[in-house]
Amino acid sequence: MWISWISDIIVVVSPEKIETMKSIIEKYGHKRVTIVKGGITRHRSIFNGLKVFTEDEFSNHLLRKPEVVIIHDAVRPFVEEDILSKVVVAAKEHGAAGAIRPLVSTVIASAADGCLDHSLERAKYRASEMPQAFLFDIIYEAYQQCTDYDLDYGTECLHLALKYCKTNAKLVEGTADLWKVTYKRDLYAAESIIKDNLSQQVCVITDVKEAAAQVGFLLQESLKSQTKIEAISVSLSKNNSHLQNVISGQCYNFVCVNDKKRAIQETQQVVDMLEKSNIPLLYPVVLISVHLDISENISFSIGMEELTRIKKFAREAKNENILVYGLLIQYKDHLLLQDTVNSAAALILALIKDRNPELIGQLLVA
Amino acid sequence: MWISWISDIIVVVSPEKIETMKSIIEKYGHKRVTIVKGGITRHRSIFNGLKVFTEDEFSNHLLRKPEVVIIHDAVRPFVEEDILSKVVVAAKEHGAAGAIRPLVSTVIASAADGCLDHSLERAKYRASEMPQAFLFDIIYEAYQQCTDYDLDYGTECLHLALKYCKTNAKLVEGTADLWKVTYKRDLYAAESIIKDNLSQQVCVITDVKEAAAQVGFLLQESLKSQTKIEAISVSLSKNNSHLQNVISGQCYNFVCVNDKKRAIQETQQVVDMLEKSNIPLLYPVVLISVHLDISENISFSIGMEELTRIKKFAREAKNENILVYGLLIQYKDHLLLQDTVNSAAALILALIKDRNPELIGQLLVA
Repeated sequence: MWISWISDIIVVVSPEKIETMKSIIEKYGHKRVTIVKGGITRHRSIFNGLKVFTEDEFSNHLLRKPEVVIIHDAVRPFVEEDILSKVVVAAKEHGAAGAIRPLVSTVIASAADGCLDHSLERAKYRASEMPQAFLFDIIYEAYQQCTDYDLDYGTECLHLALKYCKTNAKLVEGTADLWKVTYKRDLYAAESIIKDNLSQQVCVITDVKEAAAQVGFLLQESLKSQTKIEAISVSLSKNNSHLQNVISGQCYNFVCVNDKKRAIQETQQVVDMLEKSNIPLLYPVVLISVHLDISENISFSIGMEELTRIKKFAREAKNENILVYGLLIQYKDHLLLQDTVNSAAALILALIKDRNPELIGQLLVA
Repeated sequence: MWISWISDIIVVVSPEKIETMKSIIEKYGHKRVTIVKGGITRHRSIFNGLKVFTEDEFSNHLLRKPEVVIIHDAVRPFVEEDILSKVVVAAKEHGAAGAIRPLVSTVIASAADGCLDHSLERAKYRASEMPQAFLFDIIYEAYQQCTDYDLDYGTECLHLALKYCKTNAKLVEGTADLWKVTYKRDLYAAESIIKDNLSQQVCVITDVKEAAAQVGFLLQESLKSQTKIEAISVSLSKNNSHLQNVISGQCYNFVCVNDKKRAIQETQQVVDMLEKSNIPLLYPVVLISVHLDISENISFSIGMEELTRIKKFAREAKNENILVYGLLIQYKDHLLLQDTVNSAAALILALIKDRNPELIGQLLVA
């Protein structure tokens, strides 16, 4: 996510992870990023991050001190521009602002004997989440004033701004996706959310020949009817500008409908185009190569050579983070075609949603 | 989960869901369950549940009043016997007990103007979770004494026991899996946890003939080396008692290794055995039918008829909640066999972990 109004991004990393972070930033071509060595506690790390704007020693070049600084946790990967903008606007007015969420469970205080002391009335309290934003001078002043006990045992930046700068932060309701990825189950949830986000759009690519064009059209209609997915159709012609636009529009799913004989060849063209784009860099792209069998031969069979060829092709594409699956559609009986296409669409949706790297190179049959 | 020391289970359900709940209880053969109509708030529903033991009108037959009652939320599906036992033991001693977890986020109080009033020191507070247990007389007394305001706006049973019976509940540290399934992401997480739990064991079934036995053995070894999965191997002979034991031991994954010609036939035997057990009732069982091709023919091919047969077979098994996938292993070159088996094991693990109903009846190639 590129947000134009953010001028610098300071990534605070524990010393032993700095090299890894550098290689990540290089690999994905992130700009405007300065890496800073973390401290032994959360507050000490944040303070180190802020010092980049005030102390020479923390960076090769002193960055221009911002009016407002946003503080965010890496364990909350689904932050949207909207909430970032809201906390910044509120921080400009109030000096500090932070995202909050309703409490999911009641909060209780325990006594020294491990028994209940009292419970809090849930409606009066909120969970403090991230992002938070501050006028730079306020949060920096708070960190300069605060005690070693704060730095070692505290966790809440809003608390420091209140205690040392008398700034009552504005609280801004955030979305549920701001939650903190903490447990293994949260990794499962995050993976599913990412896969969901990647599955919103599928592009059906057909050549202009009759059977492929017809199946491509029916597939697109069937995909749209089976889910809220957005399906678009383009032709693979010499002028590929339309397909280029789709690719650069962050589409992560492609279905290539072709005559059986030329299927791999034409799929290769799409692989080449994807490789040239940066799309497969961040997330795996799914590319389903539909092999259309238009032969009248009833005792049709798939040769082991063909299966081996698809596998080899898929293994190569995998190196570029493109997941290729084969899908056979028999175009024989016009009456049965709609059923076959519906079954193909269901398989396509399943492959797109799972993005299973183990199943690449398999030829499924609709 | 069958826990012998729980004598009755009261399920409190909103009036419009009572019929659905009845059919669920009947379908899964749950015993010891009494359904009670819920109220318009959490506390009113719980109170209704407790009245089953004291008031005739709430049930056809008055249930024997228990010494201790456990209160649990249906939205916390992963409760283990261990924590249930812990809260019951603590409730016997202290009158009340409840599961707690560390807070993931700081809790704050907001002022009327939507700004921060103060933040709580995270280490001093806990999230109150479920299950909770009470001496029946204490929690029932608390509900009888409490005000309409409590019944309408309160949520915390421990609070009622403290306020109306001066009982300071013992707080018991629970596991992370006790969390409340609240958001869509929690459904994703719950699904992944269930799939993980179902994927812990795989049973490889081979006939006694040489090639199948060898591949079965290699497969089992390869499965064990690729993951922490427990792989066991049994033969499909006239005496099926070993396989019966595995099935009744709650194994949810089976790999049937057979000569290509008899693959479906022998897989059918396993389907029959699974159908007779209750195993596929609660969760889908994965059954991978390995077709072993031992022909020397290099230009091997798969006929459409065979593919159609596997699909038809899988569709029928699906009705019994058994997910059948085909997997072809070519047994030709002894030197390459280990590679093929490793690739087969990777596909088997992927199929088991995903349990994707859309991919049933497909013949994958190792």
